[in-house]
Amino acid sequence: MRAWSIEKPGGRQVLQQIEVEKPVPKQGELLVEVKAAGINRTDTLTRQNTALTEPYPILGVEVSGVVVENQSTDSKLHAGTRVCGLVNHGGYGEYVTMPDERAIVLPDELTFEEGAAIPEVFLTAYQTMYWLGELKEKEKILIHAAGSGVGTAAIQMASQLSQATIFATAGHPEKLEKAKELGAHVLVNYKEESFAERISGVTEGIGVDVILDFVGGSYWKMNLESCAVDARWILIGTLGGSEVDKVSLGDVMKKRIVLKGTLLTPRSDDYKAQLSQEFAEVVMPFFKEKKLKPVIHVVIPFEELPEAHRMMEDNENTGKIIMKVSD
Amino acid sequence: MRAWSIEKPGGRQVLQQIEVEKPVPKQGELLVEVKAAGINRTDTLTRQNTALTEPYPILGVEVSGVVVENQSTDSKLHAGTRVCGLVNHGGYGEYVTMPDERAIVLPDELTFEEGAAIPEVFLTAYQTMYWLGELKEKEKILIHAAGSGVGTAAIQMASQLSQATIFATAGHPEKLEKAKELGAHVLVNYKEESFAERISGVTEGIGVDVILDFVGGSYWKMNLESCAVDARWILIGTLGGSEVDKVSLGDVMKKRIVLKGTLLTPRSDDYKAQLSQEFAEVVMPFFKEKKLKPVIHVVIPFEELPEAHRMMEDNENTGKIIMKVSD
Repeated sequence: MRAWSIEKPGGRQVLQQIEVEKPVPKQGELLVEVKAAGINRTDTLTRQNTALTEPYPILGVEVSGVVVENQSTDSKLHAGTRVCGLVNHGGYGEYVTMPDERAIVLPDELTFEEGAAIPEVFLTAYQTMYWLGELKEKEKILIHAAGSGVGTAAIQMASQLSQATIFATAGHPEKLEKAKELGAHVLVNYKEESFAERISGVTEGIGVDVILDFVGGSYWKMNLESCAVDARWILIGTLGGSEVDKVSLGDVMKKRIVLKGTLLTPRSDDYKAQLSQEFAEVVMPFFKEKKLKPVIHVVIPFEELPEAHRMMEDNENTGKIIMKVSD
Repeated sequence: MRAWSIEKPGGRQVLQQIEVEKPVPKQGELLVEVKAAGINRTDTLTRQNTALTEPYPILGVEVSGVVVENQSTDSKLHAGTRVCGLVNHGGYGEYVTMPDERAIVLPDELTFEEGAAIPEVFLTAYQTMYWLGELKEKEKILIHAAGSGVGTAAIQMASQLSQATIFATAGHPEKLEKAKELGAHVLVNYKEESFAERISGVTEGIGVDVILDFVGGSYWKMNLESCAVDARWILIGTLGGSEVDKVSLGDVMKKRIVLKGTLLTPRSDDYKAQLSQEFAEVVMPFFKEKKLKPVIHVVIPFEELPEAHRMMEDNENTGKIIMKVSD
C-alpha cells in the first residue's frame, strides 16, 4: 500500500511516499481502508521530532474509511462499516489499524471527507466542554480563539447540545462572522475591546459559567474577572504565554472557581476510547441531522501532502485541512 | 429560654446573655433542645460585624441536642432523637430550630460535647476531600495545617475511609505528633524542611493526588511541584497570603491539574443539606465504631462564653472549643 512517512526528521522536504505492507490488526482492532485523513498540527511536529528513530512512522492521527477486517468482539463493526476515529500514527496510509473502541460509526449523511474532519477537534471540544467544563443546559460559556478548529466545534456543540449563551472572542471580523453563523451570541474582537467589560455588561456583573481558554497568560486577569461563582475555567492552550504575574487566590476562593489544565493527546488509550464511545452516542446523531457540521477549509489529493503541511504551518486554514486518500 | 447575643457589634465585652421566647419550628424544621454548641471563628466575626442591624441574632452555627418537636415529614427524627448539625445562627441558645435535612443522628456512643464538635470541621473536611478533591482509595494526599480543626478531621477520614498515604505539614512538633497519632504517614515541619523536596523523595518524583491547601500564596510553587499528573488541588484558605507572583500555567496544563477554590459557609442550604445527609450515611458509622474521634480542646460552661471567644481569638486551641448549654 501507499503511505506518507519521512526520510528523517525535518522540514516539509523530508516527507516521502513509501510502499509498505498493509498493517495486520491485532485482537480488538479493526483494519480500516482509509478514504480520507485529517491533517493536524501534531503531524507537523512529529515530522520535525528529532527524538524519533528509524523505522520512522507513517504520519497521521485521524481518519475516516471502511472496515475491511474486524478482529474485535464488537459485531456491529463488521466489514463494510463506514467509520471515523483517532489512530496512533498511520493515518496517512491506504490502510490503518484502529482499536475497536476508537471507531465512531459514520452516518450515510456524511462524506468521508467530512468524517475525517470530526474526531480531533470535536472530541477535544467535547471533552473540554463537557467532561471537564461540565457545561449544563442554558449556561453561559466564553470561547476564546473562536475561529480555531476546536473553537468552531465548541461553538456548534454549546449551541446545539446545550442551548448555551455563547461569548466568542477572535481577532478578525470574518472569524467572528463565522462564529455567529455557528451559533455564538456575543462577539468580541479582542483587538478592539475588553471581553471582560463586555461580559460584565451583558451579564450584569454575574459572569460566565465556563471558559474555554486557549490563551492563558495574557488573558488571566480578564478571565478571572469574567468568571461567575462556581465557574469552570478550562486551560487548554497558552497562545498568550504561560507565565502570569500576580495571581489573586482570594478571588479564586470567593468565586469557588475550578481551574483545570488539560491536554488530550497524552491521555491514555482507555480515556480516548471512553470519550469516543460517549461522543458516538451523544453527538453523532446531531451530525446525522445536519445540526452539527464539520468545518472544512480544503480537501487536497494524496500526492499533495507537502502542500497541506505548508498550509498548516502558515496558519492559512480556518477549518480542517483534509487529504483524500482513496476513492 | 437563655441565649447569648450581642448588645451591638464589637469586642468580647458586647456579648450578652438574654432571655427570649423559644423559637417556633416551621414546616420541615425540628425544634432541638441544645445540649452543647461548638464555638467557631465565624461566631467571633459575626460578633464584630458592623453591617448587622437590630434585632441582633443569637450567635452559634453548630449544635448537638435532643429533638423536642418535629415539623418535618421525616419520622425517624421523632421527639427524643439525639442529633447534631449546622444551624443558621441560634446555636448559643437553649433551643434552636434546624432544617430536618441538616440533622445528623448522634449515635449513643458519643457524648453531646463530642457531637457538637463534629459538624463544622468534619463536614468541611469531607466536602473538601471527597466532593471537591475526589480522593480515592489508597491515593496520596498532602494536608497542610495538620493541627487545625479541619486538618485533624481530614487526616482521620483520609486514613479510615480511604487508606490514603498522608503527608502532613505543621510548624510545631506536638502538632505533627498528633497528626501521626491520627493516621498521617509522612510528617514535615515546614520550619525545618521543604515539603516539596520531601514529597519528591518519598514518591520518587511522582507527587501527590490531592492537596488540601489552607495556605495559598507562600506555598504556591511547592504545591505545584508536589502535584502528580491529574492532581486535585483544593484551595480552602490563604493563611500564607492570597497573592502569587509568577504562576507557570504550562505546568498546570502538562500535569492536568485541577485547582478548586472553595468556602463552605456561603454555600446554599440545599448544598449543606445534601452534604449532611451523605455524611450521616457514609461517615457517622465510623464514629459509632470509634474509628473517628472528635478532637476537643476544652468544654466550658454556658456562663463562660466570653472566655471561649478569647481562647478562639488568641488561637489557644488545638481542637474544638465546646460550650455546654444544658444537662
